[in-house]
Formats: sequence, C-alpha cells, structure tokens
Amino acid sequence: MLSWYAVSSQDSVRRYAGNPILLPAQLTPSRPDFEVVGVFNPGAIRVGEETVLLLRVAEAPREVPDGYVASPMYDPELGEIVVRTWPKSTPGLDLTDSRLLVVAGDTFLTSISHFRRARSVDGFQFQVDPVPAFSAGHALEAFGVEDPRITRIGDIYWVNYTAVSGAGIATALASSRDLASFERHGVIFSPPNRDVTIFPEQMQGRYWALHRPMPEDIGRPAIWLASSPDLLAWGGHRLVASARVGMWDDLKIGGGAVPFRVDANGRQAWLAIYHGVTASPLTYSLGALLLDAEDPGIVLGRSRKPILFPEAPYELNGFFANVTFTCGAHAAGDLVRVYYGASDGVTCVADLSLAHILAGLA
Amino acid sequence: MLSWYAVSSQDSVRRYAGNPILLPAQLTPSRPDFEVVGVFNPGAIRVGEETVLLLRVAEAPREVPDGYVASPMYDPELGEIVVRTWPKSTPGLDLTDSRLLVVAGDTFLTSISHFRRARSVDGFQFQVDPVPAFSAGHALEAFGVEDPRITRIGDIYWVNYTAVSGAGIATALASSRDLASFERHGVIFSPPNRDVTIFPEQMQGRYWALHRPMPEDIGRPAIWLASSPDLLAWGGHRLVASARVGMWDDLKIGGGAVPFRVDANGRQAWLAIYHGVTASPLTYSLGALLLDAEDPGIVLGRSRKPILFPEAPYELNGFFANVTFTCGAHAAGDLVRVYYGASDGVTCVADLSLAHILAGLA
Repeated sequence: MLSWYAVSSQDSVRRYAGNPILLPAQLTPSRPDFEVVGVFNPGAIRVGEETVLLLRVAEAPREVPDGYVASPMYDPELGEIVVRTWPKSTPGLDLTDSRLLVVAGDTFLTSISHFRRARSVDGFQFQVDPVPAFSAGHALEAFGVEDPRITRIGDIYWVNYTAVSGAGIATALASSRDLASFERHGVIFSPPNRDVTIFPEQMQGRYWALHRPMPEDIGRPAIWLASSPDLLAWGGHRLVASARVGMWDDLKIGGGAVPFRVDANGRQAWLAIYHGVTASPLTYSLGALLLDAEDPGIVLGRSRKPILFPEAPYELNGFFANVTFTCGAHAAGDLVRVYYGASDGVTCVADLSLAHILAGLA
Repeated sequence: MLSWYAVSSQDSVRRYAGNPILLPAQLTPSRPDFEVVGVFNPGAIRVGEETVLLLRVAEAPREVPDGYVASPMYDPELGEIVVRTWPKSTPGLDLTDSRLLVVAGDTFLTSISHFRRARSVDGFQFQVDPVPAFSAGHALEAFGVEDPRITRIGDIYWVNYTAVSGAGIATALASSRDLASFERHGVIFSPPNRDVTIFPEQMQGRYWALHRPMPEDIGRPAIWLASSPDLLAWGGHRLVASARVGMWDDLKIGGGAVPFRVDANGRQAWLAIYHGVTASPLTYSLGALLLDAEDPGIVLGRSRKPILFPEAPYELNGFFANVTFTCGAHAAGDLVRVYYGASDGVTCVADLSLAHILAGLA
C-alpha cells in the first residue's frame, strides 16, 4: 500500500497519493443559486465495513451583483437561509480575512456550512450524499454549523459541532442513528468555545469532553476538560494543556480527532490528536496528547513536534492557506488514519504510525 | 427612615447617608504583612432576622521594596499565598490599569481577594468576622476569588464566585450551611465567564443560572442562560440579553444580584438586577431585567435607563472609579435593598423602589 502515498518530509506520515479525496467541484450544492466552496474538516467513524465521514460543506452565493459583497445566513423567522449583501463602498468594510466580512465591527461569514454524509468501503473513494444531512436551523446557528465530531456511544452517534452566529462561536450537540438525520440537543458549551471532542466511553460513571474556551484579558488559549452526567450538561472544568511559548502550538490549540484508546508501551491511555497554531506564517498543524485512561485530565505526554503539518501543495495553498485540521481519525494497531481538512477547502487522508506518535511525545 | 438617606438625582434611589457602610480600614487583614485595600461587591442574603454579607476583601502586600511592583498569588504547591515581585524597570511592564500588572503580555493582579462574612440586624451596621471565610485554595483560584453570589436552596447556601488565575477568569461553586465554612464544587463555567447568578428555585425540574461568557472574534458581550440537573453541570445555553448600542449598557453587561420573584402588575416574574458598562468615561451602572416566571430565557422587560449609577463621591472616586456593582439585594414589598460595591473599594447600600424599577422597563 505504500505506493499509494506521496512522499512526506516525515517518514512516519504517508499522505494518500490521491489527495485531496474530496473537492468542492465533486459536490452538488444544496440549492441552485449556491456553489460549494469548501468540503473539509469531516468527522470520521468506522461503521461496520465502511468509513463514514460527516463533511463540512461550505457554500457561497453563486452570483453576487457587481460592486457588492454577500453573506449567506439562516433567518430564524423565515426558517431558511437568506443572502445579505452590502455595497463594496460600505464604510468600515473589511475583507482582509477570506473567511470573514466585517462591517463596522460586526462580523459575518463569506460562506455558510452544513454537514453532508459520505461513505466508503476502502477509506479513500467516498460516495457523497446529494443532500445535506444537517444544516443551520436555529438562531445560534445563523452563520452555519462547522467542524463536526462524531462519538459513538452504544447505538447513538453523538455529533458535537460549532454553532456560529452573531451571538458568538459556541458548541452544540445533536444525535443520530444513521448520520443522515439528526435530533438537536442545544448548546453544550457557550461562546467562545469550539473544538470539542467527547470521549466514547464513560469514566468514573461520567461522560467526558475536551473543549477549547478562549480566555480574554487573562489566560492563554488552552484545552480544558469537562465531565457530564448526561452529555447535555457539563461541569467540573479543568485546564489540560495550554499553548506553549516558542513551540509549534504557541498561538492557539484545540481538540481535533475524537480521542481513542491506545496501548502506550504497555500502559492503557487515551490518544487525543489536537491542532496547534503558530504565527508567521499562520500555520495549523496536528500533534497528540496522551491522557490517563481513567482520568483524562492527567497529561502523560505531548508531541514535541507536529505529527502532521502543511507541506503538500493542497495544504500550502487554498481558501485559507497553511492549514491541516482534523475532526476524526480511525485507529487500528499501529495505523492511525487521519481524515483532515486542508486549507479550509478540501478533504485529505494520511496514515500515521502510532509508534512514531508515541515516540515523539515528551 | 427617609432622613437616613442622602439625596440622589433619582427620586427612586435612596442612598444610605452612612455610605460607605464598610471601608477597608475597618477590617483586620488576613496576615500582618498584608493590608486590606478593598471591601466590596458582597453577596447578600437574609438569614432570619439578620442580613448576612459575604464580602469580597482585596488585600495587597503592605510593603513592597523600593523600585519593585508586587502581585500576591496562591501557590498550589506550597498551599499558601506568596508575593511575586518585578523591578519597575522590567521591559514591557504595564501598570495603566490599577487592578492589573501586565508583564510582557502576561497579566497578574495587584491585589488578591478572599471572602469574609459580615452580619447585621439593621442591615446597615455590620459585624465583620476577623478571619476569612473562603480564600484562594486551588490553581484555578491562584489570583483570588471574587464577586460571590449567594443562592439559598433548602438548607444550603450555594455560593458561586469568580475564580481568577493565569488560566483565565472562570466561575466556580462552593456550598455552605453557615457562610463561614465552605465545600468546593469546582469550576461550573469555564473561562471567560463571570457574573453568574443562580436562581433560588427550580423551574421545569431543573436549576437555572444567568451567566456572562465573553465572546471573541464574533459576538457581543451578553447575558446567557443555562440549566442544570444538579447545580454542578450546566447546559442548554441560550442568549438572553446583549449589550445595546448607544445605551447605558452598550459596552458590556453581566449578572448582578441573585434574581428574586416579583409581582409585576399582577404577573409573577423574576427580577434580575444586572450591571451595564459604557465607555467615555468607563461607567458601571445597574439596571433590571424582568424574566418569565417559568422560562427565565424570556425577557419581559429591560431598564431603559440605569436604576442606579455612579454619582456619589465614593462612587465617582476610588480604586477603580465610576463603578456601582452589585452581587446581592434583598427585596420585600416595594423595597429593593441593593448592597453594592463602589469603585472597587467600598461597600454601600441603597434602597430602590420596585414600582419605579418596573415603571422604567421597556
């Protein structure tokens, strides 16, 4: 299988030679006046013999009148997505971030994301459902739903996702039995909070999740831990890992793939693949946290260097360049198959070696 | 009793003529090398015939070597409060905010707060316990505990408070049967979150709290609502009220006194006294939210103008000027007796008229 992979600067990383495995042009838009501008940051899970992805699909209006900029958003009163436009001559209009449209201090998004299910037998060739599985449908999702993570507990798939609106960036929860239709369970972490990963097993009789609040005034961006009696209400917040000065994750960090159990040289533990950001140039890389099997607030190890970082052309260029960002991985033996979004535009896959990841922890 | 009150520009506000009722000089420091620099923002509750305050007491090192600045902080490894010092010549040292000490981007506080119990029969003359009731005792409280709110449910006083540390500004929970000794229950709202008020009754079989996350990138400071099965884990977050452009609460808002039930012209409802901040000059005032009796996420009314704002000398001047800030009030009939901190330094009391508050809602 090695021949399937393009060369990487890291021996331990085997990028699929057919990357990106999903491109915007492959997807049918959810409506004729929209175009798909991104398919990235999928949740990933094994279901029997299949790999199922829940894709984040970003769409933008296909035609914007000359001299105007547009932001698609869900209107809770109409119950549908509408397109709001501003003349480019609007005072205070700021378009410097390709993802954003800032008007006099209020921030809107240039695209709106929904989730689409995709299925594969080999893990590389995916069949994408023609219609959205889950779309913005609440005032707190007015700017879209983003970055789904899938945690299977019993027969239920719990999907937490970023709910974006003018009220802030929060994390909400939905459940599903088929990843095609969902039930909403509201906002589980108030803004600013994203990059939540729910552990797939109870510990100490409770559910657990890593989350990423964003302190203001005092405090550095950090991954926190919370626990819950019912997956809906969360408490017992503890700091797990902060951004590290002078390292690859010095600016921001946040959860990535849903943690999975590993045997770390004879010791049972959780492996949590997370993302770290550094500035100059702004770069999103992946690393790993090794967490205690019974108390995931105890950090046993953390990647000294990234386990995956932007170096392929589709990672170095794109809608928002220099980004490798995961919401899901599949692990079996030494294989850690990471599904990830590249440059906020396309979906890729890379196989990593668990032994290499563990060897790189400090 | 009217003669006890100094005149206010608002007929509906009667400030106690003996304000401030508590000054730093009246309190014994918790240790000989510290001085009390503030006694403010008390939680307040009626216990039988008494009014009990849980005072926020801020202390700073009495003597700092010439040419140095100091920050007191709890050291979790030593299990005690230590004093950290920096030469005033330290590059990047920023002392522009009297409350803060910023060193190369890291923020520390110039004082550390604990809680002290005070009791009164008449509601004006308070007997202050000579020793702290609750002090920093956890890594997430390293910079102190602040702004307690007391909610009585059955025989238990639940006290939520701001837990400040280098990791951020969070809200933690403790419980007590006498407001003199406490049991910790950890962080219930991760940073950035403060100004939490827990409702004193269950609704729909759940506990409820207003909280104040601080969105970054997208979203304005706003009061949110959450519910809980057990007071420890919180979910179902909803937006309740945002800062209002061009009004007295246009910059920031947050919870104040623990909400209490009122009869609003024949309709049962909750009254939540909150604080609003406006800039130029930076001013902290109080207003009210009228919330539905069974679903406190439904806003029935909101103060068009502040119900109390800085105008007395002790409010216009002080450690951090132009602040009226409440953590507790006592209501009976038309009387709403508000205990509040003035200018982050002293404790005051004012009697407001419920009828006036209700008449000023829009």
